[in-house]
Amino acid sequence: MEGKSIRIRVPGTSANCGPGFDTLGIACTIYNELELTLKEEPGLEFFMTGEGAENIPRDERNIVWRSVRYLLERANALEQFRGGIIRMKNEVPLSRGLGSSATAIVAGLKAANVLVGNRFNRRELLQFATRIEGHPDNVAPAIYGGFTVNIMERGRAQCFSFLPKLRMKMVAAVPDFPLPTRTAREVLPEEVSRKDAIFNIGRASLLVAALCRGNAYFLRRAFEDALHQPYRAGLIPGMMEVFGAARRAGALGATLSGAGPCLMAYVLERDRCARDVGEAMVEAFRENGVKAQALVLNLDTRGAHIMKETHAG
Amino acid sequence: MEGKSIRIRVPGTSANCGPGFDTLGIACTIYNELELTLKEEPGLEFFMTGEGAENIPRDERNIVWRSVRYLLERANALEQFRGGIIRMKNEVPLSRGLGSSATAIVAGLKAANVLVGNRFNRRELLQFATRIEGHPDNVAPAIYGGFTVNIMERGRAQCFSFLPKLRMKMVAAVPDFPLPTRTAREVLPEEVSRKDAIFNIGRASLLVAALCRGNAYFLRRAFEDALHQPYRAGLIPGMMEVFGAARRAGALGATLSGAGPCLMAYVLERDRCARDVGEAMVEAFRENGVKAQALVLNLDTRGAHIMKETHAG
Repeated sequence: MEGKSIRIRVPGTSANCGPGFDTLGIACTIYNELELTLKEEPGLEFFMTGEGAENIPRDERNIVWRSVRYLLERANALEQFRGGIIRMKNEVPLSRGLGSSATAIVAGLKAANVLVGNRFNRRELLQFATRIEGHPDNVAPAIYGGFTVNIMERGRAQCFSFLPKLRMKMVAAVPDFPLPTRTAREVLPEEVSRKDAIFNIGRASLLVAALCRGNAYFLRRAFEDALHQPYRAGLIPGMMEVFGAARRAGALGATLSGAGPCLMAYVLERDRCARDVGEAMVEAFRENGVKAQALVLNLDTRGAHIMKETHAG
Repeated sequence: MEGKSIRIRVPGTSANCGPGFDTLGIACTIYNELELTLKEEPGLEFFMTGEGAENIPRDERNIVWRSVRYLLERANALEQFRGGIIRMKNEVPLSRGLGSSATAIVAGLKAANVLVGNRFNRRELLQFATRIEGHPDNVAPAIYGGFTVNIMERGRAQCFSFLPKLRMKMVAAVPDFPLPTRTAREVLPEEVSRKDAIFNIGRASLLVAALCRGNAYFLRRAFEDALHQPYRAGLIPGMMEVFGAARRAGALGATLSGAGPCLMAYVLERDRCARDVGEAMVEAFRENGVKAQALVLNLDTRGAHIMKETHAG
C-alpha cells in the first residue's frame, strides 16, 4: 500500500527583529521542503538533503515526525497512520537563528493536517506549533508569512501578519558556528530596567508603524534593542562591528536573527545595496575571526503552503 | 503700543494608550486656546476662563509665559518682547491625565514662534517642548495631532504621527479629583520582569499594527498593560471595574489616560456605543465612591494650529 502523500514548503524566519523581543517575526524566502507520506503500517523512512541533513535524527525523535504525530493525535487519526516516509530538502541552516526547528514543526503539522482533510485552520495550527516549540515568534511567520506581530493571550498565541509598505531585502550573515537557543536564553536577566523596557516598546512600535506606513526615515531609527542583543553580544564575536558595517554599507538597520548567531540587515530595495551590505557584514565577521556567508533574501508573503498534492493508495 | 498678537488652539492628549508606556499618545478634540500678545515694555496681564482658571499662576511662573520666554530666548528676541498679555480659554481639565500642562507649553512655544516669524519648525518645537515638559508623550501629539509613536534618540525626541484606519471615538471618564503626575510616578518600580516587558512590547506593537491596518479583532486585544496601570490602580478607586464596565458596554478597550486619574475607553464609531460606554464608566466610578463625568471625544487630526492672526502696532 502506497499511502497518502503531500509536499509542503515552509519559509525560514527571523524572530525579534531587534526591538520586538519575543514578539516580532518575519518570513524569508529561504525554504525547507517536506514530502510526507503517511501509511497504515508502522515503520519510518527518512530521505534528507541539504542543510544539516547528516545531523537530523532519523527515528521517532525526529521533530517533523513528532509534529505529524501531534496533529494525528488531535485528529484522532493515530491508529489510521502508524508509519510514514519523510523526505526533506532543507535550505534553512540549523541552529543559526533562522527558525529551522519552527519550519520542521510547521511542515509536519501542515502536511499531516492536509492528509487528514484540513481538519484544523491556521489559527489552530498556530496553537499546536506554539505548544511544540514553546513560543510563537518563529512558528507564526512560518505559518502566516509576511511580517508578524505575536502575543500570548491567556495561553493562546495570536498572530497578526501584514505586508510592509516598503519593499525591502533582508541580508543574512550566517556564521559557521551554531548557537543553541538555550545558551542564548541563559545570558538574559529575568529583570530589566523600566528604562530599557520603554526603549524597546518605543522602537518596536515605531518599527511596526514605519513598516505599515512605508516610512524610511523612521525605519532607520527603529531597529535598536536594549533587552536581548547587548547580553548576547558576548556569544557572537564582532556582533556590534557587523551591525556598524551593515549600516555604513547602506542598511536601514541590523539585528540579531532570533537567538543568533545569524545577523540580519534590512535594506531598502530601491537603495540597491544588498550585495554590498552582505559583503561588508562578512568582512566585519572575518575581522573578528568568524567565517560567515551572506544570503540576500526577500520577504516571504505566503507562509507554509502546499507544493503539489499526490493522492495514492 | 499694541504689540503683536496671535491665537493658537492646542488639543488635549491621552498618553500611554495602555501598553505604550512613555511611547504612545493620541490627540483629542478637546482644546485649550491661547491668545498671546507680545509687547516691548515689561509687564504681564492674564485673562483666563474655563478649566482651572482660578488655580493657574498669573505671574512669571505661569507655564505658558515660561514657554514663551523659552522660545524668545532661542530666537534671540528676549529684549524685543519683555511683556505680554495672555488670554486663555481652557477646556482641558487640570491634573487629570489629559495633557493640560503639555497644551500650555505647546501653546506658548507655538504662539511665540509665529510672532517671531516661524523661526523654528515642528521638529524643533518638539525638542523645546520635550525639554520643558521632561518627556515627549503629551507634547508630541499636542504638536502633531493624530496617533503618535514617540521615542527619545540620543537626547532628541522623535515623533511619528499617523491617522488610524478605523474611525474611533474616545470616551474619557474624568474623576473629580486631581492626581499629580509625580505621585503617579512614585508608585512605579525601577525594575520590571522581562515577562512584563515582553507583554507590553507585544501589545504596543499589536496596537500600532491594528490601528494602521484597521483591524478591530486585534485592536480588542491590544489595550492591555503590565507596566504601569497595575501599580497605579491603588491611586484610582474602581479603575479595574471601570475598565470592565467600558468593555461590557462595547468598548474595544480602556486605559489609564497618561498618569491618570482620567480613564479613557476606545470605541469603534460604527458600534455607536460611545454614550453607553461613558454612562457605564461613570456609574462604575460612582459605585466605587468616585464622582466622574464622561466626555466623548474624537481624534484631533491637526495638532496645535493658528486660529486667527492679528498683526498690530
